[in-house]
Amino acid sequence: MLNERNPIPVSEAVKRVTGFYKKGETEYIPLTNAHQRILADDLKADHDVPPFDRSPYDGYALRSADTTEVTEHNPKILEVVGHIGAGSVHHEHVANNQVVRIMTGAPIPDGADAVIMLEDTTTFEQDGRTYVTVRKSLQHQQNISFQGEDVGEGSVLVNKGTVINPGIVALLATFGYAQVPVTKKPVIGVIATGSELLEVDQPLEQGKIRNSNAYMIMAQLERAGAIPKYYGQLPDDLSESLEKISEVMKEVDFVVTTGGVSVGDYDLLPEIYHQIGAEVLFNKVAMRPGSVTTVAAIDDRLLYGLSGNPSACYVGFELFVRPIIDHYLAKETIGMQQEQAILAADFSKANPFDRFVRGRYQVKNGQLVAEPTGKDKSNMVHSLAKANCFIQLPGGTEGYKKGDQVTIHLLGE
Amino acid sequence: MLNERNPIPVSEAVKRVTGFYKKGETEYIPLTNAHQRILADDLKADHDVPPFDRSPYDGYALRSADTTEVTEHNPKILEVVGHIGAGSVHHEHVANNQVVRIMTGAPIPDGADAVIMLEDTTTFEQDGRTYVTVRKSLQHQQNISFQGEDVGEGSVLVNKGTVINPGIVALLATFGYAQVPVTKKPVIGVIATGSELLEVDQPLEQGKIRNSNAYMIMAQLERAGAIPKYYGQLPDDLSESLEKISEVMKEVDFVVTTGGVSVGDYDLLPEIYHQIGAEVLFNKVAMRPGSVTTVAAIDDRLLYGLSGNPSACYVGFELFVRPIIDHYLAKETIGMQQEQAILAADFSKANPFDRFVRGRYQVKNGQLVAEPTGKDKSNMVHSLAKANCFIQLPGGTEGYKKGDQVTIHLLGE
Repeated sequence: MLNERNPIPVSEAVKRVTGFYKKGETEYIPLTNAHQRILADDLKADHDVPPFDRSPYDGYALRSADTTEVTEHNPKILEVVGHIGAGSVHHEHVANNQVVRIMTGAPIPDGADAVIMLEDTTTFEQDGRTYVTVRKSLQHQQNISFQGEDVGEGSVLVNKGTVINPGIVALLATFGYAQVPVTKKPVIGVIATGSELLEVDQPLEQGKIRNSNAYMIMAQLERAGAIPKYYGQLPDDLSESLEKISEVMKEVDFVVTTGGVSVGDYDLLPEIYHQIGAEVLFNKVAMRPGSVTTVAAIDDRLLYGLSGNPSACYVGFELFVRPIIDHYLAKETIGMQQEQAILAADFSKANPFDRFVRGRYQVKNGQLVAEPTGKDKSNMVHSLAKANCFIQLPGGTEGYKKGDQVTIHLLGE
Repeated sequence: MLNERNPIPVSEAVKRVTGFYKKGETEYIPLTNAHQRILADDLKADHDVPPFDRSPYDGYALRSADTTEVTEHNPKILEVVGHIGAGSVHHEHVANNQVVRIMTGAPIPDGADAVIMLEDTTTFEQDGRTYVTVRKSLQHQQNISFQGEDVGEGSVLVNKGTVINPGIVALLATFGYAQVPVTKKPVIGVIATGSELLEVDQPLEQGKIRNSNAYMIMAQLERAGAIPKYYGQLPDDLSESLEKISEVMKEVDFVVTTGGVSVGDYDLLPEIYHQIGAEVLFNKVAMRPGSVTTVAAIDDRLLYGLSGNPSACYVGFELFVRPIIDHYLAKETIGMQQEQAILAADFSKANPFDRFVRGRYQVKNGQLVAEPTGKDKSNMVHSLAKANCFIQLPGGTEGYKKGDQVTIHLLGE
């Protein structure tokens, strides 16, 4: 299995992968489950907002013409002829020198054309009738929220492909989306390979380590909006691995394996790809870590062979698996958000390949600054815990200095 | 119910609320459910990483002393006496002029003190034995990952109070946390008040609007890491509301109501607080929107009375409910992250109160810039959908200009 491998640029590798994307179906889910899901149709207003002319204040609805001459020193007394709570309607016409007590959000009664705030009035009773003293003049249409002034019926408020946040939930509720159209989450199979792996609950043994990559990948899948399905660990045994992977391929949308893609004698995946008739899209990428990342395809199904090295596995996931999930979910934005930042520490290692250094960015006085989260030994899981971005350092240079501008890829923590 | 209300500053309101915080208990959950939960104990290494001296490469373990004179032009032939796959152990001592084939991650056999990479060797067979030709000299301890060099046994890797991300999941797996100690999520009751409210699946009626606040609050609760429990809508009826709220208070950690806290005739919450013996911590805050936000306490339980206005409700939640959830979860950081940003548009309205404008920030050439997401009419739900921050504009000024530096509060989208 010691085939020659030709590294391809990261951008080319991403392109080959996204050529195989498929979009998930639409499903309808209850509004209470919709937060963080991806909207599958445009969100449209089924009515005007406000749905009728309404009062923005607690106060009195009146005819502005009745207040023309009114001032602090020339108050006027008007009769209170009704009372509208929010949710109720006043059916009589408001006549000259009449007012109707109105609550915030209640519909303006017929005949009235303005609202005076409660604070600008005083009330009194006389002979079983209620009166209000007003001390200011109101303009025609003053203090009225007009039908449709916020949102017109039929307008598109949120585009499909958007992640549903609490503000969008409020819009969905307002427009009667008790069931919300969202894109189905892809189900992605996860398999760890390597006879050196112990499960998390097993005690350590000489020569072995606990499987951490599969759990990390499952968390990365969740963060990306997919449903991970764990199929356990495979020993370095060709026929057993072949059988398992063929079986898993039938049950899920994509498969991610970790380990088994280097050039060692026990790295079986290349042989497995060959035997199940998968087309290898690439098996070497010009980057560090993760250069041995391999992706193969059978029909429209992708089989990701991520490195067994935790950092390489992590980077390979975010660069090559995440965009496929974003495509599947039909998200508006694909892949990690990229920004410019100032490097906060020297990074002296030169490299012929692009480097994706695990880093942490912060905002200092409104400016993004980023620094590596640890020594960049590729076997160090430690630095992943603090990372909230990758710092991309293009290859072929003499290293980078504190203060240099760099591109960072946000992990979405 | 037209009591005098004295507005207090936002910071004072937050202080009064956090005085009532309580911390959630620790619960143990399976590792596969731990992503995004809050670590309740420090994460400690139960063993060294690597747990033994191991090979970082596929290659041959050898005695460096055997390669002292070796160069490209003065190669040396050594005998291959064994084969160590990852996960297995070589038990014989490696003697002079012997090498052992070794996989990435496998333990260095006794007697060997360096590893030569596979690429720097060639092999051949002769008389049934296997030999390797080496063409470079190795240093003592070259290409060995030493026991404990990444992480020493007993060291604290992640502090309690940290949000568990995929990198931390990898650490938890490595150190055998099949069950993970996390802080229990608080259960928070949500009640909408107001006779004008229709449920989401009801058709519109004159004078009524669909309840959007309760659903928005439930999504905000989820985003903050709490479990929302919805108790439906209450009409503006004192005895019914009193009974319901008293009942709900017994079942949850905190209660959030929306609506019913203004000074209108149907705003019953002040009377309810009085009748159930709740101490009102404040009922007016010097801010816009959300000035009528009310918080009351019975024993150690808080009762939040958020405004019925969607924007005011949203802001009141993030400023006053979210810190209590963060405290309950014992998070390392409490409340919204605050940063400095450049205002990208004029905001001309002056205000005696602090204003929290719904905004959207972006990074432009490494610099945070923020602008309001819509007209700032407080009844506009629309602008919440795009908001990813609040832009804080201190009161008492003549408005703000494009280019001004402002404080923004990140919503964590």
